[in-house]
Amino acid sequence: MPLMTRDQYISSLSELGHRVFVRGEQIASVPDHPISRPPAMAMAETYYQAEQEELKWLYTAESPIVNGTVNRFTHIQHSIDDLIKKILMLRDMGRKTASCFQRCAGLDCINSVYAITYETDQEFGTPYHQRFVDFMKYVQTNDLVTAACMTDPKGDRSLPPSRQEDKDQYLHIVEERKGGIVVRGAKLHITGGVNSHELVVVPTRALKEEDKDYAISFAVPAETKGVTFIYGRQPSDTRKLEALRSDVGNLFYGGCEAMIVFDDVFVPAERIFMKGEYPLAGRLVELFAAHHRASYGGCKVGVGDVLIGATAGLAEAMGIENAAHYKDKLAEMVHLNETLHAGALASAARGFQTPSGSYAVDPLLANVCKLNITRFPFEISRLAQDIAGGILVTMPSLEDQENPDVGPYVKKYLVGKSGVSGEKRMRLLRLVENITLGTGAVSYLTESIHGAGSPQAQKIMIPRFCNIEATKSYAYRLCGIEDQK
Amino acid sequence: MPLMTRDQYISSLSELGHRVFVRGEQIASVPDHPISRPPAMAMAETYYQAEQEELKWLYTAESPIVNGTVNRFTHIQHSIDDLIKKILMLRDMGRKTASCFQRCAGLDCINSVYAITYETDQEFGTPYHQRFVDFMKYVQTNDLVTAACMTDPKGDRSLPPSRQEDKDQYLHIVEERKGGIVVRGAKLHITGGVNSHELVVVPTRALKEEDKDYAISFAVPAETKGVTFIYGRQPSDTRKLEALRSDVGNLFYGGCEAMIVFDDVFVPAERIFMKGEYPLAGRLVELFAAHHRASYGGCKVGVGDVLIGATAGLAEAMGIENAAHYKDKLAEMVHLNETLHAGALASAARGFQTPSGSYAVDPLLANVCKLNITRFPFEISRLAQDIAGGILVTMPSLEDQENPDVGPYVKKYLVGKSGVSGEKRMRLLRLVENITLGTGAVSYLTESIHGAGSPQAQKIMIPRFCNIEATKSYAYRLCGIEDQK
Amino acid sequence: MPLMTRDQYISSLSELGHRVFVRGEQIASVPDHPISRPPAMAMAETYYQAEQEELKWLYTAESPIVNGTVNRFTHIQHSIDDLIKKILMLRDMGRKTASCFQRCAGLDCINSVYAITYETDQEFGTPYHQRFVDFMKYVQTNDLVTAACMTDPKGDRSLPPSRQEDKDQYLHIVEERKGGIVVRGAKLHITGGVNSHELVVVPTRALKEEDKDYAISFAVPAETKGVTFIYGRQPSDTRKLEALRSDVGNLFYGGCEAMIVFDDVFVPAERIFMKGEYPLAGRLVELFAAHHRASYGGCKVGVGDVLIGATAGLAEAMGIENAAHYKDKLAEMVHLNETLHAGALASAARGFQTPSGSYAVDPLLANVCKLNITRFPFEISRLAQDIAGGILVTMPSLEDQENPDVGPYVKKYLVGKSGVSGEKRMRLLRLVENITLGTGAVSYLTESIHGAGSPQAQKIMIPRFCNIEATKSYAYRLCGIEDQK
Amino acid sequence: MPLMTRDQYISSLSELGHRVFVRGEQIASVPDHPISRPPAMAMAETYYQAEQEELKWLYTAESPIVNGTVNRFTHIQHSIDDLIKKILMLRDMGRKTASCFQRCAGLDCINSVYAITYETDQEFGTPYHQRFVDFMKYVQTNDLVTAACMTDPKGDRSLPPSRQEDKDQYLHIVEERKGGIVVRGAKLHITGGVNSHELVVVPTRALKEEDKDYAISFAVPAETKGVTFIYGRQPSDTRKLEALRSDVGNLFYGGCEAMIVFDDVFVPAERIFMKGEYPLAGRLVELFAAHHRASYGGCKVGVGDVLIGATAGLAEAMGIENAAHYKDKLAEMVHLNETLHAGALASAARGFQTPSGSYAVDPLLANVCKLNITRFPFEISRLAQDIAGGILVTMPSLEDQENPDVGPYVKKYLVGKSGVSGEKRMRLLRLVENITLGTGAVSYLTESIHGAGSPQAQKIMIPRFCNIEATKSYAYRLCGIEDQK
Repeated sequence: MPLMTRDQYISSLSELGHRVFVRGEQIASVPDHPISRPPAMAMAETYYQAEQEELKWLYTAESPIVNGTVNRFTHIQHSIDDLIKKILMLRDMGRKTASCFQRCAGLDCINSVYAITYETDQEFGTPYHQRFVDFMKYVQTNDLVTAACMTDPKGDRSLPPSRQEDKDQYLHIVEERKGGIVVRGAKLHITGGVNSHELVVVPTRALKEEDKDYAISFAVPAETKGVTFIYGRQPSDTRKLEALRSDVGNLFYGGCEAMIVFDDVFVPAERIFMKGEYPLAGRLVELFAAHHRASYGGCKVGVGDVLIGATAGLAEAMGIENAAHYKDKLAEMVHLNETLHAGALASAARGFQTPSGSYAVDPLLANVCKLNITRFPFEISRLAQDIAGGILVTMPSLEDQENPDVGPYVKKYLVGKSGVSGEKRMRLLRLVENITLGTGAVSYLTESIHGAGSPQAQKIMIPRFCNIEATKSYAYRLCGIEDQK
Repeated sequence: MPLMTRDQYISSLSELGHRVFVRGEQIASVPDHPISRPPAMAMAETYYQAEQEELKWLYTAESPIVNGTVNRFTHIQHSIDDLIKKILMLRDMGRKTASCFQRCAGLDCINSVYAITYETDQEFGTPYHQRFVDFMKYVQTNDLVTAACMTDPKGDRSLPPSRQEDKDQYLHIVEERKGGIVVRGAKLHITGGVNSHELVVVPTRALKEEDKDYAISFAVPAETKGVTFIYGRQPSDTRKLEALRSDVGNLFYGGCEAMIVFDDVFVPAERIFMKGEYPLAGRLVELFAAHHRASYGGCKVGVGDVLIGATAGLAEAMGIENAAHYKDKLAEMVHLNETLHAGALASAARGFQTPSGSYAVDPLLANVCKLNITRFPFEISRLAQDIAGGILVTMPSLEDQENPDVGPYVKKYLVGKSGVSGEKRMRLLRLVENITLGTGAVSYLTESIHGAGSPQAQKIMIPRFCNIEATKSYAYRLCGIEDQK
Repeated sequence: MPLMTRDQYISSLSELGHRVFVRGEQIASVPDHPISRPPAMAMAETYYQAEQEELKWLYTAESPIVNGTVNRFTHIQHSIDDLIKKILMLRDMGRKTASCFQRCAGLDCINSVYAITYETDQEFGTPYHQRFVDFMKYVQTNDLVTAACMTDPKGDRSLPPSRQEDKDQYLHIVEERKGGIVVRGAKLHITGGVNSHELVVVPTRALKEEDKDYAISFAVPAETKGVTFIYGRQPSDTRKLEALRSDVGNLFYGGCEAMIVFDDVFVPAERIFMKGEYPLAGRLVELFAAHHRASYGGCKVGVGDVLIGATAGLAEAMGIENAAHYKDKLAEMVHLNETLHAGALASAARGFQTPSGSYAVDPLLANVCKLNITRFPFEISRLAQDIAGGILVTMPSLEDQENPDVGPYVKKYLVGKSGVSGEKRMRLLRLVENITLGTGAVSYLTESIHGAGSPQAQKIMIPRFCNIEATKSYAYRLCGIEDQK
Repeated sequence: MPLMTRDQYISSLSELGHRVFVRGEQIASVPDHPISRPPAMAMAETYYQAEQEELKWLYTAESPIVNGTVNRFTHIQHSIDDLIKKILMLRDMGRKTASCFQRCAGLDCINSVYAITYETDQEFGTPYHQRFVDFMKYVQTNDLVTAACMTDPKGDRSLPPSRQEDKDQYLHIVEERKGGIVVRGAKLHITGGVNSHELVVVPTRALKEEDKDYAISFAVPAETKGVTFIYGRQPSDTRKLEALRSDVGNLFYGGCEAMIVFDDVFVPAERIFMKGEYPLAGRLVELFAAHHRASYGGCKVGVGDVLIGATAGLAEAMGIENAAHYKDKLAEMVHLNETLHAGALASAARGFQTPSGSYAVDPLLANVCKLNITRFPFEISRLAQDIAGGILVTMPSLEDQENPDVGPYVKKYLVGKSGVSGEKRMRLLRLVENITLGTGAVSYLTESIHGAGSPQAQKIMIPRFCNIEATKSYAYRLCGIEDQK
């Protein structure tokens, strides 16, 4: 089965008839607009890497669903090796884009729906799993991007969905029609939403019987009638509109999120994967969370690699590469970065088989991985800025180099140690700025906190997955407490 | 003596004939250009607050130099009370601007030159102190802004000034003329440079005899021939150019730095405060560092107050103000912020009188204060982003609310808990974004690392100011080591 | 008025007829028992230092209560200068004893009762303040040690005093008699209890009307009938019983706590300072907490000085004093230690006058100081152990040096760099062990967490003393939120 | 091949004729002396667990060396699965002993010597690998404990072995005799040395040609003539000598280290595994370091489990198990503990095959694992003490409960919430004390810093194993730096 090439993907995206608004204007083509092009190009790298012969071991997989080779970003994981390779692939993508390349949430989502539809069918006698397998055949055969649409606006966080004043604060069924249902609501912060062919919608939280109407999962094409994408603003995003783009820092790539509004969207029955089986909503969320929290120990670590490299390059440009304090800080950056990676690898190495036959990561270790992700990138960024120097935020535009009045001054005074041009230094500084204070910081910092669930979510899950009673029994035995009262 | 009003200051700045370039274009008036206006307005607040009757105890002082009331930002501190009030004033300014208001580096610089010129005269029989007192009379009488011009480009950091390939990497004397000298070089990251009337130039490091020509201190007006200001770029700076400025976050204020080039600038003798007395260069740097490192425990703490307030406002808008994890994080933010303040207050409370009669802060505690400043604002920002939610970096423009297609969606789905408009929430989010990822992050984060000296500078000074030998003697006595070998 | 000398104090303690049990045995004299002698000697240093002419400025004060010079450890603070000197004195004591010298809780307690009795009288028309002034006259005239007896056993922490199954879990009045009252209960972890002449009892928490009987404060002599002291065990405490005491680490001093049981103890009316005025209980606790939390930024910092000194001595003994990683860690230890001190100094510098005329520290900064105390000594200890090396916990006894079989081996192989004896190294290691893992760790680590209130107590107080509403108003103004809804 | 039982091991140890000194006295039998018994019992658990049918999958392995089942503690790892199971086994042992059970350093050492002798033979044509295989046959067939003897005294750390004033500061060859060599020196901090049958000696650092005589590796039985063991003192060690041992905290187990002196010890040729091949010394150290640094992510995590369990038990005893701050701290403890485990698991999951056929862990991740180990146990301990309360270090002896005078008071006032005896609470407190301030802290805290190499060793290795050049190339590509100068 031929995989899509990068160029074919970009074409498919240009032709996709979805309704996208950037800063209040509907745009014609996502990859042709200067704001949205870099994220499209980051996504496109997931196709490009799979084209490379020497990387096929990492970026493709043999899928039992279609009995053929698929892009690993559409693969249902069936072994520990699959789980580990996913992490390694995400880190490699992070190194190559220094961005959120946006395709892992969808991957983690399809792996979760695959497992949970099987369990739903076992408990409720529903036909969801085969429907979903059919959907996956379509996705894998056509090598499509699937967006994970999970987070609802939530309104008043102290109230469940059914008790909200505005019922639409959680996406729900507004009508049952022959052959399908009509849904209304919105999904927020949808990573890569505008670069996806298919939207896979799942609930955002555990639900009780009263919230049955909100226990819904389905997939619709991005261009479905009633679907609107509102593109999110990022720090320094309009630097991409400047003529020379010289201060963008990351020349090629970016990430993006969108609010996706579902304004009375029709979903045909064969694309429905949950409809009212509320006890499964929480389990789906938990499984997705485990998969996705581990993913962060791949992609963010790859971005961390780039930040480490940029920092090392800057240290050499300034001639401080042998200073003890620099070496200590560099070691610390690597240490923190690899600690993040270790969490993901461990969760994969201790993975388990779900009843559906697919594999999932160890949820305790995946949550532990993510909780570190909510902390260490800030410290790595701080260390990078420490080494980079205050010039990071006070230097002129790279463009100023060409100005006849001040260009000569800029070139003369921002030079590095002998033989290193000021331009090299400035380019590296702009890259560090991008990742720690610019468009790249969106995914490297803020999304490291909130993506795949906020820190408090991990704080709640971690003791739940740890057998505290067992730890008590070890302690009681050792200090001679007989009955455990 | 009448102090300048805010409006008079803005006029004086508009009329100042200095040569300022913003993104490669010379601008006519700093306060009239949309990029440079907010920093000018932040500086102007230092005048406005001193106009307020109820704040005169804090923002003005009685100066023995002019025997009259002066703005405390031009005051030579003559008591512990002066030192403490400076810190309190800086915090108050931080609260009111959430920005670097740019006038404290100049204040700390004049206090340092005041003390050091006295000591230089004692050692070398020079006439600097009286010259400087005369300069201060002029500054105080006219209520002027003085910029501290210290940091040189430095070229290859492993070489001293006199051994650089390009001698201009450190500002130096290129010619001695009748009635004065001619200097060449550049000073980088000059806070508030473009908003200052007078430039006070001092050396950037301790110097040896071979670097005598670099041991130079003087003051020149900003519009002096040969002086050029190149304005630094900041993250998200061009949002200020957008028609509605709706996404700037901080509606009124900002900070700014500039590279200031001295291209063969003539300095008259009566404005020279050091010329070749190299042993004093290091002492001047050290004294300035102490004053200025303590200042950060005022201004950054005020910005921290605003960030805490914005975060608390957001928590209420979402209805999570009683969640235990939120309360714990809020307490932690306050705790870290006050720890920063404590360092500054302690360094003031333990201040001492210099031979000149002026007062200086305790240098050990001032360095300790600053080293915490290089760390805690990052953690406070991380906590603020944690509470704010991922929407911080994924939401549409505030302007999108007015768009007929998507505006209704934005208004409907970004609403807070009952009774809280989405706009309120979005405005607070933009303010948090400004301080942690936007123009405000320049001073709240990166400058917190590097301003007044990078962390390694503090790491070197801290043990130097601590009497390690005394601590050893305490230990030896307690464990019975008789002779101290 | 003559102050007591160290020797007079030791005699007074030997003769004190209080009932003290150490490891299940009643002891005859606290300063004569090898376990309890070092804490008695630490307390005695508070007398010895005040005897020293050159330290009288620090260890004594002019008391308006007796119109004469008193030991500062019995002084009611009447100025900011008093508040600051107290902190400096505590640090000095910490340096000289590397122990909890146990006299500051009592000092903080009398300062609190002084202020609160005044306020109680104002509100309730009671006669407590004059009674307390009379008590203070007695204390100051005779230069006595007062113990602060606050913490009750608490039983079930989810229930208030009056709802406990066993009413005695909080000390309370069991009988009113002519001329006084009879009380029952226990006070736990009473620092220096066994080394005190007078026990000053105060409530342990804020109380409601139902808990009126628990709102009680009084003072009784240590030898009062019905009072029993049960001495607490400490890690490695029995090394003090070994013949040569060679492994005690700290040769002279220590700290101690005791459980003090009040088994139907009679309190005469003139010694009662609160009896049922429950609204004042919480205020007394809060005021004492502020005073005492600031104190930790004195004493623990002094112990930190000793640990820094011991570590520096070890580094030199091993010849690593110029290693970059060692210098960085030493600077970090000093930095953390001084950050603790800064909190205390700042709380004193920002102190205020109470209605009684006495001065109290700023409660926000005092709580901030203490919260850092619950954290940094652990990190300082970790760094000290890092530098000391694994030998800290694996070396033989110092006594082993004298053994004919293994002594020569020990001497040969534990030697430091040329010219440094193994014994010097071992003595320093034992001191580090004492402070970080031995009897000294009781006060340097665990009490740093819990003394003067556990971390959660500070987490609750810090936002309460911070004006969060004001911080919100700063934020609202800056981002253009008009009405504050 | 029958494995040794726990009882057989204890007998073998009693009968071992090695020369052991505890506090200056030679002892007759390690398992019969109250100080050294608990460590012997911890070691014995490695035999006991392997006896358990349901744990044979974890504690035994199939060895190709003897073609039979061996205790996994003597197994040369031949797969990733072997590497992972080792980590899981170590954690299980940590849970069961809350101690250093002392058998993993030997295990890691034989795995390193196995791989390095193979490589030495390849490079130098030496016969070491087969000799070592023969040695391993003997060890596995007889199920023996091997101690890893690595760390030398080092004297002046700024000088290499051959330049020390006292040549014996590093173990070295003093004579070559027919059939073998004679060695002199000492090895410090040897974990489980006194509980081992065989001593495997390896160099402690990379060596140059001048230090050839120090490039030596061999194995000798513990009872070899000239070998002396000097047992290390631990905090609170003599509580084990008290009649009831009621305050030991951990009733059964402990860890121990010894200084082992080699005073002209003869080593027969067939037991020599390196003799002068100095280039391999550094590689052996590095490989051992990797294996052993990963091990700490097993054993210390198991001890962490016990500490978590004891803390959870205490929280319930006090009735605070639903307090938000307690739950947050518990989650944090679990989080940190699992982060440590993740490092070890990841290093195993990313293991590789050595030229000898055996498997080794990823060295970067193993170093990262260990560097976290030097930090987190201190924070976990701090949190445990926070939850436990100040009573941890101020309560009387457990024995005091039985005293007629004070026993009733202790029982009455140290009770927990309704239904929980004071004794339960006190036992748990003593266990927490043991691990964080007592004999258990030796391995849980100090050895976590220094065992398997001090933090600085990891700081040096981490950037060495990270491909910094590759990270620079990622950065350069993304910001458009063409040539990499």
